[in-house]
Amino acid sequence: MARTYLDTGRAIFALATAPGRAALAVIRVSGSAALELCERCFSGQRPLSEARGYTMLHGFLVDPGSGERIDEVVAAVFRGPRSFTGEDSVEFSCHGSPAVAGRALAALEMAGLSPALPGEFTFRAFINGKTDLVKAEAIAELAGAQCESARADALARLSGALSAEYASLRDAMLDLLAEIEARLDYPEEEGPEDGDGEAVDARNAAAAVSAQPWLATLASCEARLERLSGSYLGGRLRQEGALVVVAGRPNAGKSSLFNLVTREERAIVSPEPGTTRDWLEAWIEIGGYAVRLVDTAGLRRVEEGVEAEGVRRSLDMSGRADVIVYLADGRAGLYPEDREFIASHPGAIKLWNKVDAADCRPAPQDGGWLLISAKKGDCLDALEAALKERLDALAAGLSGEASGGDRAAFSSEVRLASGRQKTLMDRCLESVRGARTGAVSGLPLDAVALDVREAADFLGEITGEIAGEEVFDRIFGSFCLGK
Amino acid sequence: MARTYLDTGRAIFALATAPGRAALAVIRVSGSAALELCERCFSGQRPLSEARGYTMLHGFLVDPGSGERIDEVVAAVFRGPRSFTGEDSVEFSCHGSPAVAGRALAALEMAGLSPALPGEFTFRAFINGKTDLVKAEAIAELAGAQCESARADALARLSGALSAEYASLRDAMLDLLAEIEARLDYPEEEGPEDGDGEAVDARNAAAAVSAQPWLATLASCEARLERLSGSYLGGRLRQEGALVVVAGRPNAGKSSLFNLVTREERAIVSPEPGTTRDWLEAWIEIGGYAVRLVDTAGLRRVEEGVEAEGVRRSLDMSGRADVIVYLADGRAGLYPEDREFIASHPGAIKLWNKVDAADCRPAPQDGGWLLISAKKGDCLDALEAALKERLDALAAGLSGEASGGDRAAFSSEVRLASGRQKTLMDRCLESVRGARTGAVSGLPLDAVALDVREAADFLGEITGEIAGEEVFDRIFGSFCLGK
Repeated sequence: MARTYLDTGRAIFALATAPGRAALAVIRVSGSAALELCERCFSGQRPLSEARGYTMLHGFLVDPGSGERIDEVVAAVFRGPRSFTGEDSVEFSCHGSPAVAGRALAALEMAGLSPALPGEFTFRAFINGKTDLVKAEAIAELAGAQCESARADALARLSGALSAEYASLRDAMLDLLAEIEARLDYPEEEGPEDGDGEAVDARNAAAAVSAQPWLATLASCEARLERLSGSYLGGRLRQEGALVVVAGRPNAGKSSLFNLVTREERAIVSPEPGTTRDWLEAWIEIGGYAVRLVDTAGLRRVEEGVEAEGVRRSLDMSGRADVIVYLADGRAGLYPEDREFIASHPGAIKLWNKVDAADCRPAPQDGGWLLISAKKGDCLDALEAALKERLDALAAGLSGEASGGDRAAFSSEVRLASGRQKTLMDRCLESVRGARTGAVSGLPLDAVALDVREAADFLGEITGEIAGEEVFDRIFGSFCLGK
Repeated sequence: MARTYLDTGRAIFALATAPGRAALAVIRVSGSAALELCERCFSGQRPLSEARGYTMLHGFLVDPGSGERIDEVVAAVFRGPRSFTGEDSVEFSCHGSPAVAGRALAALEMAGLSPALPGEFTFRAFINGKTDLVKAEAIAELAGAQCESARADALARLSGALSAEYASLRDAMLDLLAEIEARLDYPEEEGPEDGDGEAVDARNAAAAVSAQPWLATLASCEARLERLSGSYLGGRLRQEGALVVVAGRPNAGKSSLFNLVTREERAIVSPEPGTTRDWLEAWIEIGGYAVRLVDTAGLRRVEEGVEAEGVRRSLDMSGRADVIVYLADGRAGLYPEDREFIASHPGAIKLWNKVDAADCRPAPQDGGWLLISAKKGDCLDALEAALKERLDALAAGLSGEASGGDRAAFSSEVRLASGRQKTLMDRCLESVRGARTGAVSGLPLDAVALDVREAADFLGEITGEIAGEEVFDRIFGSFCLGK
């Protein structure tokens, strides 16, 4: 039977640091029986169970069966509730070798601990009241931060700025609800009871309602929700980074440009067309944005075989790109494929490559090309500036804000970057709009109250105050192991 | 001016865990002023300087200029000499994000700490008497261990088993030296002083010397040194892993086999010849050996261009391989290139691929082929067994031991895996052999003493008891950062 997040009785373990060769690797353990079970595979100066919280012991991880020493380690002991998860926890600092980590994890499992599910440590922190779902998602976002702006955004969310905004909005709505429900119980005015007065009643009621101060509160909540919801696309671009695809015909110089930008000899660069068939990619930082740069196969017309597969992948990748960098072979001039691609991708940054060769300039009617020589390599600054400009515009445009003067204000704002929060936020916004338009158009107050209740509940779902078991798998399942 | 290892006055820092997205990353700091300097970029419940050794503090890493929070961290405090380096040290557990780590490292530098040189933490441990050079190298070997046998070997060396053997050998030689020198001062016998007695003297002296018990000690040292030196090649194979190259003509099915063995869809597999041009590689574990499996470009005769470059690299890689796995396209039969390659690589494991097709068997005169179908994929066990057998033979053969019954004894032995130690060990062995043959052939005792002194000094260089500054760069410079 597969374990679930709600099975919190077991002590769990996982490698918490990135895999690979390094000085140190940390294995994290948590659970009510964590210390007792770890004792079976730890041999130190003192027993783990005697260690106080926030202290460390030097010792050896040993095989609980044979007693063989696996590694010399430092065990950091945390006592619940003063730990990340709120439970008793141990963090073993081992030597950073995949072989050591593999053997150590096997020993812990042999000692009776269970391999953690992705995000299970954070889930336990949530279930033990150490964090809400918004901060939990911020932990994953912080670890995934590829650039400085993503880090700053995620830390702001982890520190509770976004949770506080959600809580404040929910409080405002619950207050509103109390007020509306009070009016339902003790109506201030009752309309006349005559037969043909219904239309007049509705008009009167609507007029009375639109004068209510609580309606202003509802409108202000709506504005705050709209601002928050509008921050999502910019937040996502900062958080997840931008996909920048280098496209162009074979031999236009895509691999040379890719190598130049990534400053690595990763692709074989050759004058023979059709060299790059698998795509190559690298993460780089440009102007504060994390950029996933992808070098695609050339866009040559090939009927079948592996190269056609590469071209299909290129087009597919270009379709998903945030920005396309399109290279033309300046010496060869523009081919029909070039013109076709550019016409169908008007937002592409167009690079006219190989201007180191003589007489290699675009025709006057072919405007908007940045002249570069990927071979000479002096075009990096211009390309990076063009990319940054495009990404700034994208972030501003996507978030519905003006570019230019407003940028500073934008960058200090609390943003959301979670698709889950965005979906719930939009439902919340819909309910609030429903409540306001309903109230203004004279809908009965109990129907309005229903919408406000629903809106407050969506906010409760966002932070996890209201959450069903089914959301846990979705949220924590996307975390990396050891988190 | 570049810093050197001997500049131990500065506090140093480095990322100690593998880079990449993860739950945790650890930044290590060491130096006499470490706590004081870290205070400038740490904001916790209590100041770091008040923390006792082997305790932890919760807090925030902050920018020492702006005070901006960079990350929520746990700071583990160690007080010299009870630390890895012997100095005051701090380990910050941050969220495992490249962006967080980058910003945190920048903050530490701003606070006045210096980025550590590769291996500088271990160097400080060495200079402060916490480790010798043999254990220092074992730390790097442990982190680099790619498989269980490498881990076990390295941990044995780290635990001091190899250091103890070196020390015991050196002690034996220093004792020997004392004995020989005593004989030089108080000779027991002097030969007759007559004119024609020189040849007789030499014979007598030689006879006298070979009866000496210290000569038996010298011979026993020689045997121990030989055993240790002989363990190197097996140790290196276990430590560094084996290079296994998949070779064969284009379309023989190399990429399919590579994918099958690595169980990943890493290479584009296509029926069109010449698909793999960059080489692909993966580390896998086979029979307790770390194996670097390399899929090369096909060995087709190509005159020029990128494919010729790929073929050149293939041949180059095959030349360095510990084991070659050679694939023939069973449906096409053997080409002259196949026969040529096999004839010049008699140790290759020969696979006759595509036996799923009918009538696809090697001719009776072409023996020694393992029949497989990389497409059907049921050949893995047989291939892994063949590889393990070849690697076992290699390890046994290289270390000069018999395969079979002696394997168990071999696996529990102390081995060296360091090229540096091996070089010094061989010089030591040469000096010991010089001393013994000199003594037996009647060389004056003071010349013998000189050789023994030299041998003892080589052992002192191995452990670092005798070591010049120039060796530090060579040893510690090859370490990874943060170690």
